[in-house]
Amino acid sequence: MTLSTKPLSGMRQRLPHEFRVEKYVVETLSLSSLNAGFEEYDCPLIEPLSLFAAKSGGELVGRQSYNFVDRGKREVILRPEVTPSLARMIAAQGELQLPVRWFSSPLCYRYERPQRGRVREFVQFNLDILGSENLAAELEVILVLQDIMKSFNAPSSIYRIGWSSRRFMAEALSRCGVEPESAPGVFSAIDKRDKMKEDAWYTFLLGECGGDSDVADRVLSLVSVKSPSSKWLIDLMAGSAAFEEVERFNELLLSSGIESAEFSPGVVRGLDYYTGIVFELVDTGGENNRSLCGGGRYDNLVGLFGNKKISGVGFGLGVLTLTLFLETYGLIPVSVKEASAADVYIAVSSPDFVSSAARLALSLRKEGIRVMMDVSGKKMNKQFSEATRYGITSVVTAGADGAMYKMKNIDDGSVFTGTLDELIGRLK
Amino acid sequence: MTLSTKPLSGMRQRLPHEFRVEKYVVETLSLSSLNAGFEEYDCPLIEPLSLFAAKSGGELVGRQSYNFVDRGKREVILRPEVTPSLARMIAAQGELQLPVRWFSSPLCYRYERPQRGRVREFVQFNLDILGSENLAAELEVILVLQDIMKSFNAPSSIYRIGWSSRRFMAEALSRCGVEPESAPGVFSAIDKRDKMKEDAWYTFLLGECGGDSDVADRVLSLVSVKSPSSKWLIDLMAGSAAFEEVERFNELLLSSGIESAEFSPGVVRGLDYYTGIVFELVDTGGENNRSLCGGGRYDNLVGLFGNKKISGVGFGLGVLTLTLFLETYGLIPVSVKEASAADVYIAVSSPDFVSSAARLALSLRKEGIRVMMDVSGKKMNKQFSEATRYGITSVVTAGADGAMYKMKNIDDGSVFTGTLDELIGRLK
Repeated sequence: MTLSTKPLSGMRQRLPHEFRVEKYVVETLSLSSLNAGFEEYDCPLIEPLSLFAAKSGGELVGRQSYNFVDRGKREVILRPEVTPSLARMIAAQGELQLPVRWFSSPLCYRYERPQRGRVREFVQFNLDILGSENLAAELEVILVLQDIMKSFNAPSSIYRIGWSSRRFMAEALSRCGVEPESAPGVFSAIDKRDKMKEDAWYTFLLGECGGDSDVADRVLSLVSVKSPSSKWLIDLMAGSAAFEEVERFNELLLSSGIESAEFSPGVVRGLDYYTGIVFELVDTGGENNRSLCGGGRYDNLVGLFGNKKISGVGFGLGVLTLTLFLETYGLIPVSVKEASAADVYIAVSSPDFVSSAARLALSLRKEGIRVMMDVSGKKMNKQFSEATRYGITSVVTAGADGAMYKMKNIDDGSVFTGTLDELIGRLK
Repeated sequence: MTLSTKPLSGMRQRLPHEFRVEKYVVETLSLSSLNAGFEEYDCPLIEPLSLFAAKSGGELVGRQSYNFVDRGKREVILRPEVTPSLARMIAAQGELQLPVRWFSSPLCYRYERPQRGRVREFVQFNLDILGSENLAAELEVILVLQDIMKSFNAPSSIYRIGWSSRRFMAEALSRCGVEPESAPGVFSAIDKRDKMKEDAWYTFLLGECGGDSDVADRVLSLVSVKSPSSKWLIDLMAGSAAFEEVERFNELLLSSGIESAEFSPGVVRGLDYYTGIVFELVDTGGENNRSLCGGGRYDNLVGLFGNKKISGVGFGLGVLTLTLFLETYGLIPVSVKEASAADVYIAVSSPDFVSSAARLALSLRKEGIRVMMDVSGKKMNKQFSEATRYGITSVVTAGADGAMYKMKNIDDGSVFTGTLDELIGRLK
């Protein structure tokens, strides 16, 4: 039987030139995190189904999960996200001093219909602060997010960090006249606004508001507000503590110089567990605003594991979505895409010289020089082609012991001749 | 319901100080590979069951696999190893110029009884050369393996790279009088030699040799040989091409200066797919020799996907096993275990100074300085404790705009006062 040469649909496979790009993206994310004192952790990919059934949105576990019964008769799931595992790690550390600043780049799984930017097996970068109820924590994760975008050299014209507050919105919707039982539907309608045409969306919203156009109009006004200093909003929210928090956070962002942040009441984020400030990173350079990253404050996750009350704030960012964004705007450096595989290539003209090639390779590598050694035994012109294919311009030909080394520069044809020490000096 | 705070048995969870160690190990493996011109790739974790059923040893798929039927009714498996996926990637690349030098550090899964050094979810480093039938390829992967051990500062007294050849051993066993139908059993007995007491093992071997003690004695002599220049072995193998290859490879290793390599006919490696030279890295510093890594040449894997004939040579190395080895011998640097989380800590004495702390953090991070900023809003002495806990000795207190910055050194109590530029100069 001949097996298929394709991986399963939606699965992640990276040839070296593709992996270099992914690695560059993940390492840039890590570097911004490390520069802010965040530490990397890792969690299991196989988890008890109950961990996700307890808290995630029903759709995740019901229709989009990879779950099965293992050989020990446990109901398990391949994690669709990492936050519940993170909460459990924190809950298990009795001695852990809080707050902690943690990040991770886990593989996650969702059984969705594969399409551009949406796959079944994906790397989701996560960054969280746990154990601080202070707005400085929200501020810090947004500082890191902005630093990430600056590290990728993304100009501020192509992205925005829109933010709001779930607690504020719950209160604001109530003051707009949304009945408590209609609130979840209205939240969900607001979440879908960017994905629908304006007219169709209004009709949808009206339905969720029980057909009351006064209420729907007020909700429309609410989600159209661009600043907490809107007179209409201030009147609506008089005396609201949740709105005071919004005003305070807005002030913090402005005075900290986060130019990319924008108050956007329409940002509600789908996941059930957010309770306070929520935010998303949006691609604003195209025709449609695409969300690249979402985050916010969650208050009760750790409580699932016992009596502890630990509040967290963080975000998740799909590495594939971000990579496509960076590629769209030409932000993946050429040096990453076309990196040379080594500093020098050692050609071997005859089987008699394999061990002298090996000795030379060892000597050069010991000096930190990256050395690709021929292993093909092919003709010399093929070996030179291999060097060229890997972006290597210097080729040394291994020869008899005691002889001088000859190194050819493929680009300009020049030849350097010298002892081992001279060769090392030249290559360094 | 309160959920368990423990991950499932055998699953991998890493707190930051544990993850730093794992990352150090994986990055050191990567660096040695990159220095030899190897490139990193990645493959899906979920694979069709048929990919493994076709070639791996039966035990893997039969009793030790995580396999299930997905929502699309596909029989899938969480890969127990990466080599079949690698072979498929190579087979799919019609245009790929060979040979290629590739490595990867994939998560893999085996449903085994968890014990020290053996878990169900593990990172397995893999390094391969595909598309070369030249012994230089075997030599190169062993060069990299030795370079890895040197990069970890492992003295040659605590490890050995034992090697043999499957083709040679098949012929040698036959010349020792082992019947063809007994050969698999004898191979398997040889593979278990290090795990059994000498007496018990001989009895076991004798059984596999059909009770013929002449044959068993010759097999015992064979696996006790330490060099291809053994007179007994040369006599036994007269005229054998497979033995000539062994002699040639021994010569190559010796003349390339691989002092840690040792001819060991008892090294046969369990996996079905090896066909030529096989080798393993063994911990020789303890009472029992433990295998840290195994590898060799496989000739037919890519053929599963069509007509191509591509030969490969490579090895797999369990990151956990290697980490335990390094820890046993004190080879994990203190600087990795006790790394500081940042260069400087910004303390915040009042909520009024959160945004000035944020502005300072941004200014310092822009200069590449790692800055942890307080997000707790706790009292100053708690903030200083946090800095100490993270190994940060410099603490700047954020203050009113325009004021000079004060930075305290926690170790010696000294205070530095200066402008932003002076602070940056001091920290860099």
